[in-house]
Amino acid sequence: MFRDATPQEIENVMQDAWKAFHVYRKFSLKQRADFMRAIAIEMENCGDALIQTAMHETNLPEARMRGERARTIFQLNSYAAACEKGEWLEARIDTAIPNKVPPKPDIRKMLIPLGPVVVFGASNFPFAYSTAGGDTACALAAGCPVIVKAHPAHAETSTIVANAILAAADKCTMPKGIFAHVYGAGFEVGKRLVTHPHTKAVGFTGSYTGGKQLFDWGNQRKEPIPVFAEMGSINPVFLMPEKLNNSAADIAKMYAGSITLGVGQFCTNPGLIIGVEGEGLDKFIAVLEDEIKNIVPAKMLHEGIIKAYNEKKKTALEQQGVQTLSAVAGPNSGSSGNSQAAVGADSRRQGLTNSNSDLATPTLATATGKTFLNNPVLHQEVFGPYSIVIRCADMNEMTEVAKQLEGQLTSTLMATENDIKANDELVEAVRNICGRFILNSVPTGVEVCLSMQHGGPFPASTDARFGSVGADGIKRFARPIAFQNWSNQLLPEELKNENPLGIWRTVDNELTK
Amino acid sequence: MFRDATPQEIENVMQDAWKAFHVYRKFSLKQRADFMRAIAIEMENCGDALIQTAMHETNLPEARMRGERARTIFQLNSYAAACEKGEWLEARIDTAIPNKVPPKPDIRKMLIPLGPVVVFGASNFPFAYSTAGGDTACALAAGCPVIVKAHPAHAETSTIVANAILAAADKCTMPKGIFAHVYGAGFEVGKRLVTHPHTKAVGFTGSYTGGKQLFDWGNQRKEPIPVFAEMGSINPVFLMPEKLNNSAADIAKMYAGSITLGVGQFCTNPGLIIGVEGEGLDKFIAVLEDEIKNIVPAKMLHEGIIKAYNEKKKTALEQQGVQTLSAVAGPNSGSSGNSQAAVGADSRRQGLTNSNSDLATPTLATATGKTFLNNPVLHQEVFGPYSIVIRCADMNEMTEVAKQLEGQLTSTLMATENDIKANDELVEAVRNICGRFILNSVPTGVEVCLSMQHGGPFPASTDARFGSVGADGIKRFARPIAFQNWSNQLLPEELKNENPLGIWRTVDNELTK
Repeated sequence: MFRDATPQEIENVMQDAWKAFHVYRKFSLKQRADFMRAIAIEMENCGDALIQTAMHETNLPEARMRGERARTIFQLNSYAAACEKGEWLEARIDTAIPNKVPPKPDIRKMLIPLGPVVVFGASNFPFAYSTAGGDTACALAAGCPVIVKAHPAHAETSTIVANAILAAADKCTMPKGIFAHVYGAGFEVGKRLVTHPHTKAVGFTGSYTGGKQLFDWGNQRKEPIPVFAEMGSINPVFLMPEKLNNSAADIAKMYAGSITLGVGQFCTNPGLIIGVEGEGLDKFIAVLEDEIKNIVPAKMLHEGIIKAYNEKKKTALEQQGVQTLSAVAGPNSGSSGNSQAAVGADSRRQGLTNSNSDLATPTLATATGKTFLNNPVLHQEVFGPYSIVIRCADMNEMTEVAKQLEGQLTSTLMATENDIKANDELVEAVRNICGRFILNSVPTGVEVCLSMQHGGPFPASTDARFGSVGADGIKRFARPIAFQNWSNQLLPEELKNENPLGIWRTVDNELTK
Repeated sequence: MFRDATPQEIENVMQDAWKAFHVYRKFSLKQRADFMRAIAIEMENCGDALIQTAMHETNLPEARMRGERARTIFQLNSYAAACEKGEWLEARIDTAIPNKVPPKPDIRKMLIPLGPVVVFGASNFPFAYSTAGGDTACALAAGCPVIVKAHPAHAETSTIVANAILAAADKCTMPKGIFAHVYGAGFEVGKRLVTHPHTKAVGFTGSYTGGKQLFDWGNQRKEPIPVFAEMGSINPVFLMPEKLNNSAADIAKMYAGSITLGVGQFCTNPGLIIGVEGEGLDKFIAVLEDEIKNIVPAKMLHEGIIKAYNEKKKTALEQQGVQTLSAVAGPNSGSSGNSQAAVGADSRRQGLTNSNSDLATPTLATATGKTFLNNPVLHQEVFGPYSIVIRCADMNEMTEVAKQLEGQLTSTLMATENDIKANDELVEAVRNICGRFILNSVPTGVEVCLSMQHGGPFPASTDARFGSVGADGIKRFARPIAFQNWSNQLLPEELKNENPLGIWRTVDNELTK
């Protein structure tokens, strides 16, 4: 039903996108925003049929799908508002000083679109990070045509949304080629899209393997292009001593929910929890274990994901010094050779539910700080309802763990004010590795607002200087151009003396409207 | 005298830089700015000795060296002011909405430094794009330690400036490792610096070959890092019909100066001039030829550069359909097999001056639009006082040339208002390829101000989304971090409710102080 796009079809799509770029980039901010709002309306108009299709394709529940569509519509509308407001243009004006030696010319700068953007749909967010998701909204706001490669796991959902976008394009008399939707189950279609000379940027949310491959293809082109890949992370949570002693049980309850939310299928899932050995940590683990045991195993997004979850979890649990706490390693764990995985009545109970092997068992593991520091396998993401609790000997060892970690989307401190003041080195180390730094809360739940940063140092994302949530993401798909010595009537509206669009601009070093 | 840094020395430098990073990034904006201003003062204090050394090493005249030092000091002081002003931090605050479903947490975002930055000195700007140049100033403002690899062609100048920076660091009690200066004549030192795990970004101005190599090294690391390489371009100038008919002689005189300014050793040198066949273009060429002939050949920066100039020029002039106008191809052209190169009394006169083979002869060539469109060799930069005039059959062919060109630092239109209004497709094509778009002026001369864009689509630079001149360049070395759910007293000064630094911030979507 969903046939891979042929090389010729991809060529045609890219030629159309290139032609559309030359028309669309001259459209006003208002025209772009109107188009984005029209897409939001069309998505709403897709009604229950879209929700049902998405539920069927992703195994995600109705409430989540309705919530995610609402979020996607909010993204389109709020980025449209940001597009029109024009702060993202970073308009700068330096007026001429003719009697300076040498004379200073009039120079005015603003961001302009890069060109056609290829967006890869994400498996875990069929709406918000897929066809009409954040990357698409940002690219359209920036003035770029968009080519979406549908995620094979929800190609039908993607098609319905693509048709909604095309209907909106039609209503807004957008140029042909402003949006295209292609299928590709293997890597060939993706490679052709990323390496096509007319592609000027790429947006992706997914696995490290996938994102890194796109990044390499993008950089190996004759003309390298930016590839914005958000590749997930293990989102470490640091349990600091005073806080842990005060509230071990509360924190455990909060985190049992965060670890298993949406069957653990969020890139902000807390996969690593670090504490210092002691009564507080013992209590935390005990409560967390109890809570996790009560979570009913559930279906994951698709067969590939549950398979990867079970395999990666098995690998992690098999590592020397790792103990499984509240669950068995998965359907294949009986033959894993990991004696701990089969121990305990509760584990056995969980193991039994797994005779239905397409359900993901929430799993908790533990290891010492030394074990973690010496084994990079334990630093890798296990995508799903899994987390490992690291028991450090002392705060120095916890600091060592923070320093050794690779880049993360989020890091969280569970800490009192005293904890923070007494552990400056740790706090600095944690801050240095993440894109979002959370205090006394959970990393799951990514608010769509201007101050959000969804991205982080590599390997959390390929470019820590940008994020994929919030209107600042528009700037990923734009570049500055300086106009030198142009007369007022020839300048773009955004840079004219009289500021007809009423946008914020820096004029002779002062921000002004 | 200038020994290549050993692997162990590089390791020590990077360890010191990494340690310094953890101290320096916590310094206030004012402390960073004070340090930058102290460097400016120390550079001034170097007095005539620095100017003399630079003149001796680069063959550049005294006035240029004095002007360039003044410019470098201006950069340090103006980026220091921008650093303190804090607009570059892109501070964003979204306040909590506890009764939203789910509750919206308090989130606040700002830019923080990436880590140690490696800067490569540029041969053609011993001050402004070298040791204490724009990249260094931007990195220090962002909160990053800097490691400079001295350009081998002016290692002594670089050493004097490095000592000035170290003296300033001492006076400002900066941490050890905040700045380091290493020598490396081959590529090994550069490679070690770029691939060291503690290096988090690279700044470079120079050749395509050099910049592209650094870019590849940066991307092939286990943890890829941004490499900001400004690699020059041919800076096309489009002579549009009405303007050319009105002012052919004036434009020619203006461009004779621009082509030969500083012996053509600017990355913004106009190496390509495009017009439509006719009386206007004939007159332009005749006057330009006359003017260029009057320019006295001069020494270039160093032996490697004059050698490359003569070789690349020879290659260009030997291409089928290329005619040499006002000079011969250089000292080796007698044996080049290019019959046109040896024709004409004037050419011979210029050829004679070249018996002193270390002087660069300003050279003008010409070819038809068809020749240019069919020969990519002619699209390559010939670094030096060289330019080729392309005679197009009509405006369609000129548009074709614009569409075929690769990315450029600058593009220039010599045009009346009528020219611009009548040639929208051409204007759009030209705008699409450049970082700075100039009307009725010359591309040489890069004003240091916020609205400047010095950079452009690849291969002009490796990241068109940033530039290396103006305080916006600070953002190259920083990344956003979002603080979620932090109490006011624990937040950085920049994000506290009371805005103690008085910086512009976007609070709940509105810019405010």
